[in-house]
Amino acid sequence: MAALTHHGGRIDAAMALFPNAPAPWLDLSTGINPVSWTPPAGMTINAGPLPDRGALARLEALAAAHFGVTPERVAAVPGSEMALRLLPLLGVAQPVIAVRPSYGTHGAVASVRVDHAALDDWAGRTGGLLIANPNNPDGVHRSPEHLARLAQAQGRAGGWLLLDEAFADAMPGPGFAGDEHVVVLRSFGKFFGLAGVRLGFVIAAPGILARLRELLGDWPVSTHAILWGSAAYADREWIAATRIALVERARALDAVLARHGLVAQGACPLFRMVDTPAASDLFRRLAAAGILVRPFADAPERLRFGVPAAEAELERLDKALRHG
Amino acid sequence: MAALTHHGGRIDAAMALFPNAPAPWLDLSTGINPVSWTPPAGMTINAGPLPDRGALARLEALAAAHFGVTPERVAAVPGSEMALRLLPLLGVAQPVIAVRPSYGTHGAVASVRVDHAALDDWAGRTGGLLIANPNNPDGVHRSPEHLARLAQAQGRAGGWLLLDEAFADAMPGPGFAGDEHVVVLRSFGKFFGLAGVRLGFVIAAPGILARLRELLGDWPVSTHAILWGSAAYADREWIAATRIALVERARALDAVLARHGLVAQGACPLFRMVDTPAASDLFRRLAAAGILVRPFADAPERLRFGVPAAEAELERLDKALRHG
Repeated sequence: MAALTHHGGRIDAAMALFPNAPAPWLDLSTGINPVSWTPPAGMTINAGPLPDRGALARLEALAAAHFGVTPERVAAVPGSEMALRLLPLLGVAQPVIAVRPSYGTHGAVASVRVDHAALDDWAGRTGGLLIANPNNPDGVHRSPEHLARLAQAQGRAGGWLLLDEAFADAMPGPGFAGDEHVVVLRSFGKFFGLAGVRLGFVIAAPGILARLRELLGDWPVSTHAILWGSAAYADREWIAATRIALVERARALDAVLARHGLVAQGACPLFRMVDTPAASDLFRRLAAAGILVRPFADAPERLRFGVPAAEAELERLDKALRHG
Repeated sequence: MAALTHHGGRIDAAMALFPNAPAPWLDLSTGINPVSWTPPAGMTINAGPLPDRGALARLEALAAAHFGVTPERVAAVPGSEMALRLLPLLGVAQPVIAVRPSYGTHGAVASVRVDHAALDDWAGRTGGLLIANPNNPDGVHRSPEHLARLAQAQGRAGGWLLLDEAFADAMPGPGFAGDEHVVVLRSFGKFFGLAGVRLGFVIAAPGILARLRELLGDWPVSTHAILWGSAAYADREWIAATRIALVERARALDAVLARHGLVAQGACPLFRMVDTPAASDLFRRLAAAGILVRPFADAPERLRFGVPAAEAELERLDKALRHG
C-alpha cells in the first residue's frame, strides 16, 4: 500500500496488489486531465538533434503569456515535481515550511510542517513557506488577496513564499504572479493531460532562475515537451473549452458521489476529496473493481477521486459504489 | 561566437551569425549520430498518464544489461548533461577535478583543472577526478586497464573517479563498470541519434543513486524516453550494425579531410578533431556554406567535425573545403 499512498498514478503497484481486478484499470488516482490536449495532425517532431534553444525560449515566452508574467521570470523544468525537489538548492530562505495536508513531495522537501489553519492569520516566518493553490488533496483554493498577504508577511520576515500552482490551470483567472520573494511552480501535464511529457515551469526572479539553469543545464526538457507545450499554451480555444468541460465533469462526479452518501470537497475541477470513516473499505472495494483512487497514509479517512473523462467511466464508478 | 563555442548543436545561433548561408544547414557541430534509431512502426506512446514506474525499472534493467552492470547500479536521468551538473550534489568527494581539454560542462562543474598529460602517471588526489572516455573533443580513448589504475589511485587517495562515457556506445566492448568509488555517466541520445529525447544514465553505488533520485523525484524521464530507450537498448541487431556503419562513415570523413590536408584525430567514430592554424578561417568558410562545425574558445586552432550521415553530405563538405 505504501506505493499507492506515496503518489497517485501507480497502476503498476495496484495491479500487483489486486491481481484479480478487471482490466483495464480506471485510474482515478491522479488529478491529471484524462481528456488530453492532442497535437495537430500535421505536427512532426524530430527528436534527433538536441532540443533547439530558440524553441525553448519561445516555449517559455508562450507559457509566460499564459501565466500572465514576463518571460524573463519563467524557466522550463522536466516536471514540477523535480522543481519542488530542487527548491531548497535555489537560494530561497531555509527551512522549507510545508503545510499539512498537502502534496506528498511537499513533506519530502520540507523540514518544518504547519497546519493549514495557521495560514489564516500568518504573521510571517523565516524560511520558505510552501503551499499549493489549489491545495492537494483537499482542493482548498486561496484568493489572490490571501496569497498577497502571505507573500507580504513572508517578505517582512525575511522569508519566501513558495507557491505550487500545479493545478492552477484548471481554475479561472491567471495564477499568482508573485514578486521578488515568491517562487511559483506550474505543471504542464495536469491540465493538458500530458503528464508523461515531463514539463513544468518555475516563475521567479531571474537570479533564482539562473541558479536553476546551472543545475539543469542547457537542455532541461525534451523536444516533445518544447513543441507540444508551445502549441498547447497557444491553443486558447482548447484551454477555454477545457476549463468549462472540467467543471461540468466535476459536477457529474459530485452527483455520483452524492448518490452514495459521499460529499465531494474542493474547488479544483481536476479532483475531489472525500472524507469518510469508510475510506479504506471503499478504497479496497473500488480497487477490486479495477478502479484506483488515491488513499493517504497520514489521513486514512480520506480518498481523492480524479474526475472521470466520460459517462461510461462514471457509470463504472457508480456501479462499483453501489455493489458494496 | 560564444554561443557556438559553449556547446554544439546551436544551429539557431549559427543562423543568426551567418544569415546568408544556404539552408538547410548541415550540422556537424555535435557528436550525435545523424542516422537515428527509429521506433518500430506499430509502437504507440500514451503520454497522458505519469510515466509508469515499472516501465522505468525495466528501462534501467535493459540499459544495465547493455552497459554490462547490475540493474541496482543504474538510474535514468533526463540527459547526461544534467547528471554532470548534479554530480557535486551526490556525495562524491570534492573538489571536482576536470581534465583539460574536455567537454564544456566538465569545466563548468569543476573547481580544479589538470592537463591530460597528468593522467599518465596519476598518483591519486582527494576529490572527484572527472574524465570523459572517449574524450571530447580529441577522441582520446583510454584502455580499461588505464581506467582501472586511475580508479585505484583515486580510491587510495580517498577520492573518486567520475567517468563520462557519453560517447562510449560507439566503441567496441562494454564500458567501464566501475566500483565503489566510481561514478559513470552514459548518454542515450548520442549513439542512438535521439538527443531531443533527453535520456542518460548514472552508474554508481546504490547510495549515490538514492541521493540522485531524491533530487530528481519519481518521474525523472518522459514516457517517450522510457519506451524508446527500452526498445533501442534491446535492439542488439541495430546496435551491432550501427557500430560498424559509424566506423565506415568516420573513415569516409577522414578521407575527405585528408584530401584537403586536414588530419583527423581521435578514436571515436561519432566525431573527429582537426588541429590546424587555419581553424577559425575554416570555421567561417564552412559556416558561410551552411555547414556548422564545432569551434573551441580555449583552443582556437581546433575544430571538431561530427561524422556526416550520407554521401551527399560528405560531398557538400568536400565542395565547401575545396572552394576556399
